[in-house]
Amino acid sequence: MSRRKFVTLAHGGGGKASSDLIEDIFMPEFSNELLESLSDGAVFNAPPGGRLAFSTDTFVIDPVFFPGGDIGSLAVHGTVNDLAVSGSVPKYLSAGFVLEEGFSLKELKKIARSMGEAARECGVSIVTGDTKVVARGGADKIFINTSGIGFMPDGVEISPKRVKKGDMIILSGSIGEHGIAILTLRKGLEFDTELVSDSRPLHELVKTMLEAETGIRMMRDPTRGGLAAALNEIAASSGNGIIIEEKAIPIKDSVRGVCEILGLDVLNVANEGKLVAFVPPESADKVLSAMREHPAGREASIIGSVGGTEPGRVEMKTEFIGSRIVEPLVGDQLPRIC
Amino acid sequence: MSRRKFVTLAHGGGGKASSDLIEDIFMPEFSNELLESLSDGAVFNAPPGGRLAFSTDTFVIDPVFFPGGDIGSLAVHGTVNDLAVSGSVPKYLSAGFVLEEGFSLKELKKIARSMGEAARECGVSIVTGDTKVVARGGADKIFINTSGIGFMPDGVEISPKRVKKGDMIILSGSIGEHGIAILTLRKGLEFDTELVSDSRPLHELVKTMLEAETGIRMMRDPTRGGLAAALNEIAASSGNGIIIEEKAIPIKDSVRGVCEILGLDVLNVANEGKLVAFVPPESADKVLSAMREHPAGREASIIGSVGGTEPGRVEMKTEFIGSRIVEPLVGDQLPRIC
Repeated sequence: MSRRKFVTLAHGGGGKASSDLIEDIFMPEFSNELLESLSDGAVFNAPPGGRLAFSTDTFVIDPVFFPGGDIGSLAVHGTVNDLAVSGSVPKYLSAGFVLEEGFSLKELKKIARSMGEAARECGVSIVTGDTKVVARGGADKIFINTSGIGFMPDGVEISPKRVKKGDMIILSGSIGEHGIAILTLRKGLEFDTELVSDSRPLHELVKTMLEAETGIRMMRDPTRGGLAAALNEIAASSGNGIIIEEKAIPIKDSVRGVCEILGLDVLNVANEGKLVAFVPPESADKVLSAMREHPAGREASIIGSVGGTEPGRVEMKTEFIGSRIVEPLVGDQLPRIC
Repeated sequence: MSRRKFVTLAHGGGGKASSDLIEDIFMPEFSNELLESLSDGAVFNAPPGGRLAFSTDTFVIDPVFFPGGDIGSLAVHGTVNDLAVSGSVPKYLSAGFVLEEGFSLKELKKIARSMGEAARECGVSIVTGDTKVVARGGADKIFINTSGIGFMPDGVEISPKRVKKGDMIILSGSIGEHGIAILTLRKGLEFDTELVSDSRPLHELVKTMLEAETGIRMMRDPTRGGLAAALNEIAASSGNGIIIEEKAIPIKDSVRGVCEILGLDVLNVANEGKLVAFVPPESADKVLSAMREHPAGREASIIGSVGGTEPGRVEMKTEFIGSRIVEPLVGDQLPRIC
């Protein structure tokens, strides 16, 4: 990255270039322990003795309305999920809008309604906000930042540093639906089956999981950059190798079909209602059963385990050709996916 | 506003149209007590018994670099100040970037450095972040959202509801510098004296003030929309009238001159390093003296008091023509001022 002089779309892809940007530009300037944990949310102590999680995400998705949601519901689910996979109970959200002059007030109302509904469904309140307007052409329609605060339950500690050899890796359901739904919509592609984003809140699923096993070591929602980026980040920050099994990963036929036609690797495609969890081996079955009882985890499955390959590497046993290394994308195959 | 169908620049001006947008679009959907307080920050309880302030602001200022700061330092000062005038000690910030493809990495680095320096000066840590990139033309250079968390000291309660007839109104220093610095820069106007933004953190000034008088009733930093918008909002939410004295309001000659040439009312011009405080009359002198001891409050003065006119109205005794009503701007005289 040092040789590049300008921001590229790849810097926003959630893969290698995004990590480089953070490492090269932001980390040296902002440097502090909480940020360096590179978690989805920062967890800190608040007087007189509580623990809070804090997370932020800006949504620039295009198009604004899509099958399965819109930028408003996505902005609520996205931050709620980041707080949930940090182990916390999401409580309060902020909402920061950047609006393009000329954006329809009717659509804005629809988006606000969808945010309100999503917030109620997630048990969070949008307690503070800000609205900026830029002249026509200065932004594309609407961008929404949501930041959020969650309360950490006692005894819960979610961190890649806690991931150990032998941990089992559980995926909560089928992957690739959000990215493929947006991509086909944007390109005007039509298929027999409707492709719908999986955008949904995960806070209740996480609650169920932590009730089954307080000692869950790590969770992440594989959004931008997909499962490949999420697993590679965890492998890198935990200093462990990861092996997953291709046939254990649930993928809907419709998603598989589109990926084959367009030559996309589904492991790089964004999800907005799924999580991966790293669980001590002895409690994997217990957590898996609990997840399957919940609508958001009905198709949960153990997709792999920690160890068995070089530290920092993610390897996948494939159905046909032995095994291959899973790498995060360097570029951005789907800009503005969230 | 009900007859308008599209977002206009006025909706982002911080005046009447901004309030209407919040009242008509966001409030009905997000409705909750904390949001309805319309404070700069939401204050809530966190287990096992602490109180926190939470605030958000997105910065879209154009140009990105200006005399006295840049979008990075402004983004830190802005949210730190919102937390401070909520009565809290600012602690943690999030940073959400929207970058335009092609933005210079050198400039991004400069902005990140300036954010880091500002954060250290303010005693806050940037603990969580997010970066999105949109294709060229999808955004203008760089937008930054900062959200922040502050810890509330015991006994402090800042709210327009606590404002009472007879309260004295203290302004921390001269007004209009930020808005006029940006405006002249943007229009390429040149004047004899350099116009510099007043962007600066106010957390230490607030600390000094609360040490002098825990019972300060209300504070606000008169940013977008200027002193006129801030006082009108407080008059409206407190249900009291406000009378201020024109000759008591500090204004630098350079700012006054530009306002006269361009026909701007300095009361509508944005500030980024000033606050107004509503103080019980018996402690006004004590708070004023404490403020004047601090570099950020050296020119503090009592500019008026609560009562003496109709509830919700702000009136100004002028130097020449008796008195006039001070109204918030309906439009936006300076888009993208912060």
